Amino acid sequence: FTGKCLFSPSVAPGLSAAKLLVEEGLNAVVLEARDRVGGRTFTARNKETKWVDLGGAYIGPTQNRILRLAKEYGIKTYKVNEQESLVHYVKGKSYPFKGPFPPMWNPLAVLDYNNLWRTLDDMGKEIPREAPWRAPHAQEWDSMTMQQLFDKILWTSAARHFATLFVNVNVTSEPHEVSALWFLWYVKQCGGTMRIFSTTNGGQERKFLGGSSQISECMAKELGDRVKMKRAVYSIDQSKDLVEVKTLNDEVYKAKYVIVAIPPSLNLKIHFNPEMPPLRNQLIHRVPMGSVIKCMMYYRENFWRKKGFCGTMVIEDEEAPIGLTLDDTKPDESVPCIMGFILSRKCRKLCELTKEERKRRICEIYSRVLGSQEALHPVHYEEKNWCEEEYSGGCYTAYFPPGILTQFGKVLREPVSRLFFAGTETATEWSGYMEGAVQAGERASREILCAMGKISRSEIWQSEAESIDVPALPFATTFWERNLPSVGGLLKFMGVSTFLSAVTAAGLVACKKGLLPRW
Amino acid sequence: FTGKCLFSPSVAPGLSAAKLLVEEGLNAVVLEARDRVGGRTFTARNKETKWVDLGGAYIGPTQNRILRLAKEYGIKTYKVNEQESLVHYVKGKSYPFKGPFPPMWNPLAVLDYNNLWRTLDDMGKEIPREAPWRAPHAQEWDSMTMQQLFDKILWTSAARHFATLFVNVNVTSEPHEVSALWFLWYVKQCGGTMRIFSTTNGGQERKFLGGSSQISECMAKELGDRVKMKRAVYSIDQSKDLVEVKTLNDEVYKAKYVIVAIPPSLNLKIHFNPEMPPLRNQLIHRVPMGSVIKCMMYYRENFWRKKGFCGTMVIEDEEAPIGLTLDDTKPDESVPCIMGFILSRKCRKLCELTKEERKRRICEIYSRVLGSQEALHPVHYEEKNWCEEEYSGGCYTAYFPPGILTQFGKVLREPVSRLFFAGTETATEWSGYMEGAVQAGERASREILCAMGKISRSEIWQSEAESIDVPALPFATTFWERNLPSVGGLLKFMGVSTFLSAVTAAGLVACKKGLLPRW
Repeated sequence: FTGKCLFSPSVAPGLSAAKLLVEEGLNAVVLEARDRVGGRTFTARNKETKWVDLGGAYIGPTQNRILRLAKEYGIKTYKVNEQESLVHYVKGKSYPFKGPFPPMWNPLAVLDYNNLWRTLDDMGKEIPREAPWRAPHAQEWDSMTMQQLFDKILWTSAARHFATLFVNVNVTSEPHEVSALWFLWYVKQCGGTMRIFSTTNGGQERKFLGGSSQISECMAKELGDRVKMKRAVYSIDQSKDLVEVKTLNDEVYKAKYVIVAIPPSLNLKIHFNPEMPPLRNQLIHRVPMGSVIKCMMYYRENFWRKKGFCGTMVIEDEEAPIGLTLDDTKPDESVPCIMGFILSRKCRKLCELTKEERKRRICEIYSRVLGSQEALHPVHYEEKNWCEEEYSGGCYTAYFPPGILTQFGKVLREPVSRLFFAGTETATEWSGYMEGAVQAGERASREILCAMGKISRSEIWQSEAESIDVPALPFATTFWERNLPSVGGLLKFMGVSTFLSAVTAAGLVACKKGLLPRW
Repeated sequence: FTGKCLFSPSVAPGLSAAKLLVEEGLNAVVLEARDRVGGRTFTARNKETKWVDLGGAYIGPTQNRILRLAKEYGIKTYKVNEQESLVHYVKGKSYPFKGPFPPMWNPLAVLDYNNLWRTLDDMGKEIPREAPWRAPHAQEWDSMTMQQLFDKILWTSAARHFATLFVNVNVTSEPHEVSALWFLWYVKQCGGTMRIFSTTNGGQERKFLGGSSQISECMAKELGDRVKMKRAVYSIDQSKDLVEVKTLNDEVYKAKYVIVAIPPSLNLKIHFNPEMPPLRNQLIHRVPMGSVIKCMMYYRENFWRKKGFCGTMVIEDEEAPIGLTLDDTKPDESVPCIMGFILSRKCRKLCELTKEERKRRICEIYSRVLGSQEALHPVHYEEKNWCEEEYSGGCYTAYFPPGILTQFGKVLREPVSRLFFAGTETATEWSGYMEGAVQAGERASREILCAMGKISRSEIWQSEAESIDVPALPFATTFWERNLPSVGGLLKFMGVSTFLSAVTAAGLVACKKGLLPRW
């Protein structure tokens, strides 16, 4: 093959890039490492499940690019069930609730919790989505882990514990593993704490009927024999007239331009000639993928709905394998199923068990949380441990440990001669999601069009019209959410004299630093 | 080639492994990615320098394995010059000093600084060198960055700044980038703060006459055509009777066992069949290499010695490119030279300048620190930016960001079927150094001998007799070093009544938390 453009190991971003270029009349080939397209989306089909998304599955309002693509191929969405009560399981008890976040009861925890979301969103507002390293406090926030930020702003253990789960669920890693700047950016570029965490009106509002891989499959079908499977790329040579790309099955592809549409750290799978520039050569060693096992438990009946539960469980219990569940029953109410995530530290611990043992432990926690013996008797179980995938490295996405985003972030999508970089990690809206993959793929394609002189620089980045079918509602904050004091603020206010407030503050600072027992 | 044992991309650890196995009568091949042996050691030869170590160079007492190898090949060591005064440059002024660490002058800083070294070494004593994840406080310390530990134990900005340089110099990364558990382990397995940082009686006591690469070169010569250059490995297939290893130049090697003697994250350069187990698959994404440019400035005359300076400069100045220098003049006093490191954050910033610009800035700081115009007129300059090396990924060694050592450390050198893992990162004594590379290579070889039934499990790990030529002296601590209070301890002691001490503590805690201006 010798052509204009070529897409090395590639999935949604690679396919969407190729699609755009082929539509522009260019000659493109997609080289896919696996024997399937879809990458971190993976729809399996079998008689027990009809179909099941073992990887990326959820979409929601403001994810307009992926919704546009789906609509083009006639792939319908449906709402994840959230009609009945959600359940928050904490300290061994289940508390039904409605709305995106489980409520807190202790009055100090209420203030703390309210201040947490407000602070994360306010800090996010300072961070440019296209260049988080230019945020006014970039250095300071990137030198901290999210754990340090939580230690700084939170006063109650209830809020701390939930904040940990919030990080685990959103980025499949631990608060002490990730840069505060990076995590704040991540939440911001998804539209804030409410948008990222919500089912209704948020990132988990919907799924694709028939499974998310259909989009990649439809694009692959359209591209026909331009898509080559089982072509893991191990070498890219830019030292000649055309870029030479070699695959494990001993083929050589030559192209004018190449888009590398894989996670940054999987760039290491490729031997480059010439070597990458120093900052990029080091960046790709520094952005690991998160850790998650996605687990679907199938039941004869949708027993949780009968008990008034929608299937969403927010589980805080160090011994519980699962941190968050969602109803995964088909929209016609067939194939009753609960989807649950084994996240981060728990994933690393439980990946050494057998599948049967994980299944047993998951059923046990579902039974406790839902108060039902029926949870112990599933009819089928599916799971996918993304940590074992050589060509993903983990899921959902890459995270930035402290110090990396400010020092290396700017080279994340900076082209290297005739190489351009896609992959959801290079996106600026819903990076880490299918939406980000499409944004990145299309942007990288337009970088090539620009390099070829077909479009101007200002046309590379394009905004997307809102989906008519899945419109976004604003998140209204209440007067109290905006104006309730933080715990620290309350304590300041309570001090009636300088002396008294100094002593109170001293005691509380001591408490906060762990010198006194916590309430 | 079809043989018993095979060493994929390989340098000191690969060569020392092969040497041991060949001595045992086995058939081994070493596959080296580069066109030279030596890996992170790299002795260049030219008329200006005679020879120069652009990579790993220093050895010292307790590094008995590398000293044994060198002696076997008749390679001599010589002492790095430390006869005259060292210089500590801080707040724009130069302070000559003697001994391993620059002294502090502010009385509180003296206490703080003394307590820093004592605390790091005491914490290190709790950490098993062969299994740091089993330390009693492993979870807690691994959840913190070194920055957090410094924030916790240090009270003065003088100690904080020096502590940052201590991390930069030893592991070419930032305190906020590395796990406290990992850094404490790293210092401990080098023999403690004094051993790791000292020139005399420490890790920088000596160099090899003629350059450090000679050891690899001698081993390679001994192994003859068993060592194959320009054989970057891109694929290892364990699915057949023999392990199949493919190289970029389209060769296939078959062997009963393979030792992968490269940094953990460079394992990603290899496509594995079957895939690595989940924890190993994720570990190799999580351990980046440090950032350093090694710079040698050559002068007509050894002007610093005439001024009473030995050539060691400890430089604290955010604008200075270099953090630490050592005299690099040849032992016969020919080729006057100062070696300096551009470390971590400075490396990432300055790697975008031209070589000429770096040279200019380095001369300027040398001129200021040594108070000499002669420093502005070098006769030659050599530098090596290790960040640009695809087959090193950085130097000196891999670091562990927070949270990784406890969750993934145990699989670092756990064999995967017929693959065994060497590389200095897998060592338990002087990991990160040439010594660790030899320990790791020889240990991995004995793992193969054990798998073949030639030795027992208990013979895999072997201690090394002390070098006769380079004996280690103990580091004596003084009564005062052991018994001076920390700043915190002093303040507790000073409180004459409960009330007064509470108020004092409140003020100081407030100060420590940055609520008041620092002294």
